[in-house]
Amino acid sequence: MPNIANDPKRKSWIEVSKESDFPIQNIPFGVFITKEDVITIGTRIGDSAIDMGALQQLGYFEGIDLTDDMFMQDTLNDFISDGKKTWRLVRNRLVEIFSIDNPKLRDNKKHCDVVIFDMKDVEMLLPVQIGDYTDFYSSKEHATNVGKMFRDPENALLPNWLHIPVGYHGRSSTIVPSGVSVKRPNGQTLPPGETQPVFGPSKSVDFELETAFITTDANLIGEPIPVGEAEDYIFGMVLFNDWSARDIQKWEYVPLGPFLAKNFASSISPWIVTMDALEAFRVKSPEQNPAPLSYLQQTGDNAFDINLEVSIKPESSEETVVSKSNFKYMYWSMSQQLAHHTVNGCRINSGDMMGSGTISGPTPDSFGSMLELTWGGKNPIKLNDGTERKFINDNDTVIIRGYCENEDMRIGFGECSSKLLPALKIK
Amino acid sequence: MPNIANDPKRKSWIEVSKESDFPIQNIPFGVFITKEDVITIGTRIGDSAIDMGALQQLGYFEGIDLTDDMFMQDTLNDFISDGKKTWRLVRNRLVEIFSIDNPKLRDNKKHCDVVIFDMKDVEMLLPVQIGDYTDFYSSKEHATNVGKMFRDPENALLPNWLHIPVGYHGRSSTIVPSGVSVKRPNGQTLPPGETQPVFGPSKSVDFELETAFITTDANLIGEPIPVGEAEDYIFGMVLFNDWSARDIQKWEYVPLGPFLAKNFASSISPWIVTMDALEAFRVKSPEQNPAPLSYLQQTGDNAFDINLEVSIKPESSEETVVSKSNFKYMYWSMSQQLAHHTVNGCRINSGDMMGSGTISGPTPDSFGSMLELTWGGKNPIKLNDGTERKFINDNDTVIIRGYCENEDMRIGFGECSSKLLPALKIK
Repeated sequence: MPNIANDPKRKSWIEVSKESDFPIQNIPFGVFITKEDVITIGTRIGDSAIDMGALQQLGYFEGIDLTDDMFMQDTLNDFISDGKKTWRLVRNRLVEIFSIDNPKLRDNKKHCDVVIFDMKDVEMLLPVQIGDYTDFYSSKEHATNVGKMFRDPENALLPNWLHIPVGYHGRSSTIVPSGVSVKRPNGQTLPPGETQPVFGPSKSVDFELETAFITTDANLIGEPIPVGEAEDYIFGMVLFNDWSARDIQKWEYVPLGPFLAKNFASSISPWIVTMDALEAFRVKSPEQNPAPLSYLQQTGDNAFDINLEVSIKPESSEETVVSKSNFKYMYWSMSQQLAHHTVNGCRINSGDMMGSGTISGPTPDSFGSMLELTWGGKNPIKLNDGTERKFINDNDTVIIRGYCENEDMRIGFGECSSKLLPALKIK
Repeated sequence: MPNIANDPKRKSWIEVSKESDFPIQNIPFGVFITKEDVITIGTRIGDSAIDMGALQQLGYFEGIDLTDDMFMQDTLNDFISDGKKTWRLVRNRLVEIFSIDNPKLRDNKKHCDVVIFDMKDVEMLLPVQIGDYTDFYSSKEHATNVGKMFRDPENALLPNWLHIPVGYHGRSSTIVPSGVSVKRPNGQTLPPGETQPVFGPSKSVDFELETAFITTDANLIGEPIPVGEAEDYIFGMVLFNDWSARDIQKWEYVPLGPFLAKNFASSISPWIVTMDALEAFRVKSPEQNPAPLSYLQQTGDNAFDINLEVSIKPESSEETVVSKSNFKYMYWSMSQQLAHHTVNGCRINSGDMMGSGTISGPTPDSFGSMLELTWGGKNPIKLNDGTERKFINDNDTVIIRGYCENEDMRIGFGECSSKLLPALKIK
């Protein structure tokens, strides 16, 4: 199945600005609701949302083997279940429909009216029903920074870190799409120097700059996925803010890991950018030394050059970029994460989500959390409006952006943006 | 809504032996498939499986506000969503239908033929689609035993343990019903005295004796559930074997908790016993000292007197009971677990499952895992066939049983039974 959709020379009859994350070479997938309360699966070109449910009803996917209501659903899970061959057929077809020289839809005003919406007129929903969500911890710089701050600066990495793509399970039920506000959590913390915990709003709510990938049905219980095949089971990627309450985390996480410090909310960008769309931006992963065990060994370019940045926007002033990082810094690749996750026979379903872990780069301005950027609150960050932040304040909005770019094109994710609301008052 | 179903004097026209876990006072809910490949929601009396889908089609639930296909589904999630009032109406109705003096179904042979099956002729399936699964760590004896073995015998409990019902997220996708065999997992371990990990089958696969509760939709994101209301959101309980690979766990779990050591498989008993059915078996929880923070304080009898036992059955000999414990030993109640889980606003959905954590009692024969029973493999257990076990051998079947009993009646869970198959060979 040739991947014709990636031709960098192709142009669309939908106008796309040069800075857009969504040229006709992207064709991400998402779910949106229109002003008329219609929920549909769709894609995006420039600032236009494309109703794929309407396209299907009008016969534009004829010849592709799809169930009749494939795109008239409120999640992408069934489409993702259909596998890589179908994803390519559909993405290629969409590219044909919107190619500048194809008059079929372009010149049919009636059809255009029910298919194409201004992004301003739709609301993005969660693109998948997430069955299980796993978060990894795969940035060596991040793990080293955390180890230096909280354990031994001389032996910052734990003994297992260079051998295992360390991961843990998270909570699916509180993953929300970009645009949905998040409440500061209440919880137990142990004030410094005290022996009795107290209850109240977290005083150190942080973001974590991550990406996440969405899987298709990959295996039955008991069947591992070899590292060399793992990418075939990855549908695409999103930006991910793994909101974290550091004071709650510190008190609760030994010995079974973070729990309430994380599961109050996690935010994702709403458009899933396919692995096919990211193909041109493959790069080498960092060298792995010591060599991992054989079930984790892989060849080729398994990292992706995705520019990432985080901004904080106070309620009544402009945003300030506080971090610039890149997905290519990840020590463990997504294929290695998925091979590790399944080597014991763990089943992976359509719509499962796996987070990268905080993506920190080598320089202090590329760290992926306030914890690291302010080094545990010791060095507050100055925002453009003159105020300072150790962590995130009430009514701040945290915005993650991500994009790939070369001479030919730019493929981006849009935004993962969410506002932190004050904590609920509990007696 | 009176809970008439609990009358201990009531008898059914379906014969029930005195030792049965399933008298007419139980009325648990489950999902089964018949020999004719019909999947339905059902209940059980004695050794009879009752097809509630057929009962609904024949009009036996008339007058109760239910969707037309409520019981013709392959999961209980929608029924559980309908809430406590509906659960009671349906359970009361079932009790009426099967009461010894009610001729309506009893004397209608045609109806009986399509409604009542021998348990031997049906296969039990997972009763719910589990969205999120959380496991707690709420037995003081278990946490103390683990602390003594792996940390400091003098300070076995970690500082947070008496303040927090410690919990962590698990994997939903590999939860299987009783009767489904489980493969010994492959994975990374660090052999004693070595610095480089090796790959291969786990050498220390263990059971964990647990119960679990199933929730209904309880809250929106951001809304805590008060401890005094928490039980209204618990539909019922099952027996739970949280299979664990101790050698994999030891190497992977610091700092983010157990992952591949647990998510290869977890087994549950297939009948959900409702909280209403357990009402007569309430007892006091162990005293909590220090007093927990106010959001965790509760009054009344919040523990349940549920006898639990674990057997190991080698492939070609009889089973040996290796542990006798009781759910009443739990330090933290289910209400406290649910109140804690949601105090930060974490959303709870219909069909979510929460495990108790290993339930160990005060005496060595009441410990809930081989790790504790053999004290880390130091004191192997002798089985009735003369063989010894440090952990679970290939082709052993682990059987958990549980029941409540007083002078009037016995309400039980049946079995959670699963066989450990040899590991898959991986090159």
